[in-house]
Amino acid sequence: MSVTALPTVCCAPLAAATLSAEQAAATAELFRALADPARVRIVNLLATTEGEPVCICNLTEPLGLTQPTVSHHMKKLVDAGLVERQQRGRWAFFTLRAAAVETLASVADLKGACC
Amino acid sequence: MSVTALPTVCCAPLAAATLSAEQAAATAELFRALADPARVRIVNLLATTEGEPVCICNLTEPLGLTQPTVSHHMKKLVDAGLVERQQRGRWAFFTLRAAAVETLASVADLKGACC
Repeated sequence: MSVTALPTVCCAPLAAATLSAEQAAATAELFRALADPARVRIVNLLATTEGEPVCICNLTEPLGLTQPTVSHHMKKLVDAGLVERQQRGRWAFFTLRAAAVETLASVADLKGACC
Repeated sequence: MSVTALPTVCCAPLAAATLSAEQAAATAELFRALADPARVRIVNLLATTEGEPVCICNLTEPLGLTQPTVSHHMKKLVDAGLVERQQRGRWAFFTLRAAAVETLASVADLKGACC
């Protein structure tokens, strides 16, 4: 099982009192991983399986994409630390990373910061 | 005062039970608006003023960017519906949009969806 660590300099909440240039770059990187409709749909599909790993062979049809294209998007999600990859025989299985789910929610939380 | 509406087809939570192609595209568009370190820093600056409109003239120095560059990023944030623009004499002032703050937090909320 391969585990990908989140980048060393991680993102900071958008409403953080102070935000370094490195944190801003890491935060933008996290959003960039989701700035694509196919990757939004992949994360959505993984989010609706209640933590059950999903075989890439079961993603191509609902997404209407070829396996190389799904693999390309999966690599970006894994690199961003949002998704975890497990190899089982010939197939790769994917789950959302719990830590990334927490990170994304806290990064995007601007409530209390305005209005 | 100019008010920009959110796109008609709006984004849906990443963990939504069903996600149409249009919603996935709108969600990706919202993330794309934040997929840039300068825009992350702008949103951060606006988030830390407690709803007080910020003059573009006060953003160039903390960002270390020229006014045309800040204006370019502001246009993208306004187009995405994240930021509101008010013209006061020769200067443009900006605030975070309350609705967008809510939307972003709910879109990025994957908690309960996994693990």
